[in-house]
Amino acid sequence: MRIGFGYDAHRFADAENRRPLFIAGLEWEGNGIDGDSDGDVAIHALIDALLSAAQLGDIGMLFGVGSASRGAGMRGTVMLEETVRYVRKHGYAPGNATVTVIGNRPKIGPRRGEAQRVLSEIMGCPVSLTATTTDGMGFTGRGEGIAAMANVLLESVE
Amino acid sequence: MRIGFGYDAHRFADAENRRPLFIAGLEWEGNGIDGDSDGDVAIHALIDALLSAAQLGDIGMLFGVGSASRGAGMRGTVMLEETVRYVRKHGYAPGNATVTVIGNRPKIGPRRGEAQRVLSEIMGCPVSLTATTTDGMGFTGRGEGIAAMANVLLESVE
Amino acid sequence: MRIGFGYDAHRFADAENRRPLFIAGLEWEGNGIDGDSDGDVAIHALIDALLSAAQLGDIGMLFGVGSASRGAGMRGTVMLEETVRYVRKHGYAPGNATVTVIGNRPKIGPRRGEAQRVLSEIMGCPVSLTATTTDGMGFTGRGEGIAAMANVLLESVE
Ligand SMILES: [Zn+2]
Ligand SMILES: [Zn+2]
Ligand SMILES: [Zn+2]
Repeated sequence: MRIGFGYDAHRFADAENRRPLFIAGLEWEGNGIDGDSDGDVAIHALIDALLSAAQLGDIGMLFGVGSASRGAGMRGTVMLEETVRYVRKHGYAPGNATVTVIGNRPKIGPRRGEAQRVLSEIMGCPVSLTATTTDGMGFTGRGEGIAAMANVLLESVE
Repeated sequence: MRIGFGYDAHRFADAENRRPLFIAGLEWEGNGIDGDSDGDVAIHALIDALLSAAQLGDIGMLFGVGSASRGAGMRGTVMLEETVRYVRKHGYAPGNATVTVIGNRPKIGPRRGEAQRVLSEIMGCPVSLTATTTDGMGFTGRGEGIAAMANVLLESVE
Repeated sequence: MRIGFGYDAHRFADAENRRPLFIAGLEWEGNGIDGDSDGDVAIHALIDALLSAAQLGDIGMLFGVGSASRGAGMRGTVMLEETVRYVRKHGYAPGNATVTVIGNRPKIGPRRGEAQRVLSEIMGCPVSLTATTTDGMGFTGRGEGIAAMANVLLESVE
């Protein structure tokens, strides 16, 4: 059994730069995230958790970094599918996973079950989603951006 | 075996708003935490870790949010007891847990053993408590508030 | 099987205070970290993860705090070796570990393999190293300092 951990943070886009908001595999109301990816911090943290548990590098190594990278413009759900296949090919199967979204928005609670079903189906194991704020403190509290931390347990398969 | 993770952060109350300070199940010297709960970030993080490991939602789902919620005014130790019963009822027993408190105060070290005994007795497993500062950086470093991260391993029981 | 978690953060030294930069057991280009230790946040987080999993306190308890402490001036690699021996003496062996470095510099990717070999040899188990930035947000994003989070699984040995 192997433990993995992942952390990710992204900045919300400016009001004049309208983008869809993807978190935990779902699209949410409100403006999205800056940058070259779809900004799904929850999935990006899960990907790093998977890769670190299997000692297979991190998201930047698998999908590249920047606007010319293979991961640029790729949906988080597609990246997660590919990561799970990659980890399985190296002899590991996800046992369970958990990811915590830290930020003022979106309100995760009402769609927690929906997001958990999407993530659990992709990963082939129970995935839990929790959410918290930081009481107005720090970059998440000021609404500048959103962060996520994820843990995963992998089992060795032959 | 299931892994769980929890994160929580709370703002210290202003000097004119005197409140007791509860962290890791103990009361400490110094002014407490703003808000509707007793502000015990260590216990709140442990609760989210337990619930996420068992895929049973998070602390907001179990105890509510805001001054009219069931959790308002509830001591963290009581919330943790209820959470452990809830998780056990769903077929899981805590194997061990660890929680890290991040902030300038209180000084955890001298009362680490006492806090670990309280938390371990409630959870029915070894619970470790560590503490760190952030070298004056960020909201914890500026003394605006306090944060905690927790991990737990659950075992399936029949 | 026991889970452990560790978090650490250090401030980069001022330009006029030149110090070597140690992260994850390697020396990197660029100015180092303020303070009494070698500032290796990755190793310090791994040490807290090991100690918390074995319920043996934290890095401050084992090595002291401040310029007169036993840990002052001690290289992180030496501290990690001692911690692994200490945990083994108490009946636990590391199964695997993972550590995430959060900051603008150094660029971890090109030397990830080298760092993982150093850490894995000291810990006697696979150690994964991942790295991420915070999109210019918070103290890590502004380049004030660097943080790390680590997880470890310990197995009971007789
Ligand atoms: Zn990302
Ligand atoms: Zn709380
Ligand atoms: Zn340190």
